[in-house]
Amino acid sequence: MARMFTLHPQLAKDAFVVGEFPVSLLLLINDCQYPWCVLVPQRESISEIYQLDNATRVQVLEESCRLASTMQQLYAADKMNVAALGNVVPQLHIHHIARQKTDPTWPMPVWGKLAAQPYTDAERDARLQQLRRALFNK
Amino acid sequence: MARMFTLHPQLAKDAFVVGEFPVSLLLLINDCQYPWCVLVPQRESISEIYQLDNATRVQVLEESCRLASTMQQLYAADKMNVAALGNVVPQLHIHHIARQKTDPTWPMPVWGKLAAQPYTDAERDARLQQLRRALFNK
Repeated sequence: MARMFTLHPQLAKDAFVVGEFPVSLLLLINDCQYPWCVLVPQRESISEIYQLDNATRVQVLEESCRLASTMQQLYAADKMNVAALGNVVPQLHIHHIARQKTDPTWPMPVWGKLAAQPYTDAERDARLQQLRRALFNK
Repeated sequence: MARMFTLHPQLAKDAFVVGEFPVSLLLLINDCQYPWCVLVPQRESISEIYQLDNATRVQVLEESCRLASTMQQLYAADKMNVAALGNVVPQLHIHHIARQKTDPTWPMPVWGKLAAQPYTDAERDARLQQLRRALFNK
């Protein structure tokens, strides 16, 4: 079934598309200070997880767990931070950030602390390839 | 089946027990600046959602959605913030915060911004009673 879905322009601006799970679009935030991905369930006009129907919600949980587990392994993260905030961008999106005890804002949450440091083209391509291989066998 | 589970002392210190869902303990953070609850799945030695077995994980999602939906209604929240961080307290716990555009840290996340303002005894009792009625018919 074709569904209407348009990625919020702020997310499109701040991130690269890594790939697609059955429900969610997977983005990589353009900030090389942390491995930072965002899952965006491709459903219109949803801003809270509980607003998804039950089957979709369970599928998004599956996608989130797959992503968190893969990121924690790939980046040897001390802790995953998983969060649906959306105070600025209301379109439902779920942050997945691989935190290290040595990263620049540990142990604080990352939001609003430091200006983003964009990837170089080569770093971006390497990270996208790494994530695509691990998550989508590409 | 009896299970070993001990609430992390930092959570016990910062919050009051509201009640119990089938899997999670429900806490109210002792900060009257925001309606702020925490779900703690009662399983030992788990720090990430993906480490829960599949059935438990789906049940926690159910509890989280019930809680988020109820809090958004009760407090007419502009946005729910739902997050599993755990950089300081590794025991898996999931924050549910009812945010208002008029609250003191909007639109930033709440962590690390303002010192907690404890409830008075009367405010605490009223809030606990309100949550118990809405969530546990008590």
